[in-house]
Amino acid sequence: MRAVVLLSGGLDSATTLAIARSAGYECHAVTFDYGQRHRAELAAAARIAVALGAASFRALVIPIGSFGGSALTDPSIDVPEHGGDGIPVTYVPARNTIFLAMALGLAEVLGAEAIFIGVNAVDYSGYPDCRPEFIAAFQTLARVATKQGVEGHAVRIEAPLIAMSKAEIIRRGTELGVDYSLTVSCYAADDEGRACGRCDACRLRREGFRAAGIDDPTRYFGQ
Amino acid sequence: MRAVVLLSGGLDSATTLAIARSAGYECHAVTFDYGQRHRAELAAAARIAVALGAASFRALVIPIGSFGGSALTDPSIDVPEHGGDGIPVTYVPARNTIFLAMALGLAEVLGAEAIFIGVNAVDYSGYPDCRPEFIAAFQTLARVATKQGVEGHAVRIEAPLIAMSKAEIIRRGTELGVDYSLTVSCYAADDEGRACGRCDACRLRREGFRAAGIDDPTRYFGQ
Repeated sequence: MRAVVLLSGGLDSATTLAIARSAGYECHAVTFDYGQRHRAELAAAARIAVALGAASFRALVIPIGSFGGSALTDPSIDVPEHGGDGIPVTYVPARNTIFLAMALGLAEVLGAEAIFIGVNAVDYSGYPDCRPEFIAAFQTLARVATKQGVEGHAVRIEAPLIAMSKAEIIRRGTELGVDYSLTVSCYAADDEGRACGRCDACRLRREGFRAAGIDDPTRYFGQ
Repeated sequence: MRAVVLLSGGLDSATTLAIARSAGYECHAVTFDYGQRHRAELAAAARIAVALGAASFRALVIPIGSFGGSALTDPSIDVPEHGGDGIPVTYVPARNTIFLAMALGLAEVLGAEAIFIGVNAVDYSGYPDCRPEFIAAFQTLARVATKQGVEGHAVRIEAPLIAMSKAEIIRRGTELGVDYSLTVSCYAADDEGRACGRCDACRLRREGFRAAGIDDPTRYFGQ
């Protein structure tokens, strides 16, 4: 029983990999180099894949950074310290659609039954492609887009964190043995993976550890 | 009024670009280098973009060839001369899903109203991601996946060839001034863009010119 697991190097996707492993899947981890500023994510993803026993790890280069239009890929747009209302400038156009599309192709070649993605619609940044309706629409697409789907065994899109709070995610991952010191969530992490402590992703993560009553192992700038 | 137009270098997508231009769109052409054997396609796409007045042309490298699983990307699988029943080995897993996902991101950054794709479900090779139900599912996805969609102006997925025969496509493109000698359809084209004349794509193309009553400008091996 195989699964493709999207791994960003952050807290959510590491927990998702641990959940997929605990469900008995042979996990093929995929991370994307899409020109993101926070390059420390990529090294973190590789470490997490090994630590959590993935069967394989792929880093795929996707040229969406060249499109611009997001604070995460465009150096001319500042990463804000507070999210504000609506969809923030850290939104990367069609990012999860592109990631799931690539995973769909890989899943079909590997004969995988499921794709795991660590999206979360509770303690999240308001991105449209992290919501249940997005996952449902992609599931529908997978049924008609692929040979697997046409033959009646479309890959299942699994989003086990979608309705969990950040604290619940951290508690579940801790039960499953995830070492969160390996993960990098910060949008502006330095090359060592140390976090700014101020961006939206840092704020959600810090509050999650506090609410879970679990020590935050994150290293911040200056530590 | 802007559009992103997927351009493969073949007959169908060239016609699609001509149709988008004739509808008044400023067209931003995108082609993909996905490790396909028929590399002459890429040069053809660039020539067609210029000849048909695209406002921009991008060639994006997508690492799906490394997945294997298709005769179009895997040298260990032969390109067959006849399609046979069912979905053929030239099917590339999730190819059009990946292409449309990338186009979706680009369209959002460019503020494009439409994405044009030259899929065709009449004289085609039986790929699942060339059918109307695939296009409809992707349209539904675009509405929930993007900021544009959430704000009520999702990009439209336009597939103007979907119900046309190959002969109708060729007649329409000829009316619009498409120079089909620039296009390469063959799965096994040589570096000069000359066609094998025997694969499924060559067969459909040759029969299309014959049925349209238009001289076939394709150069075949040995010519």
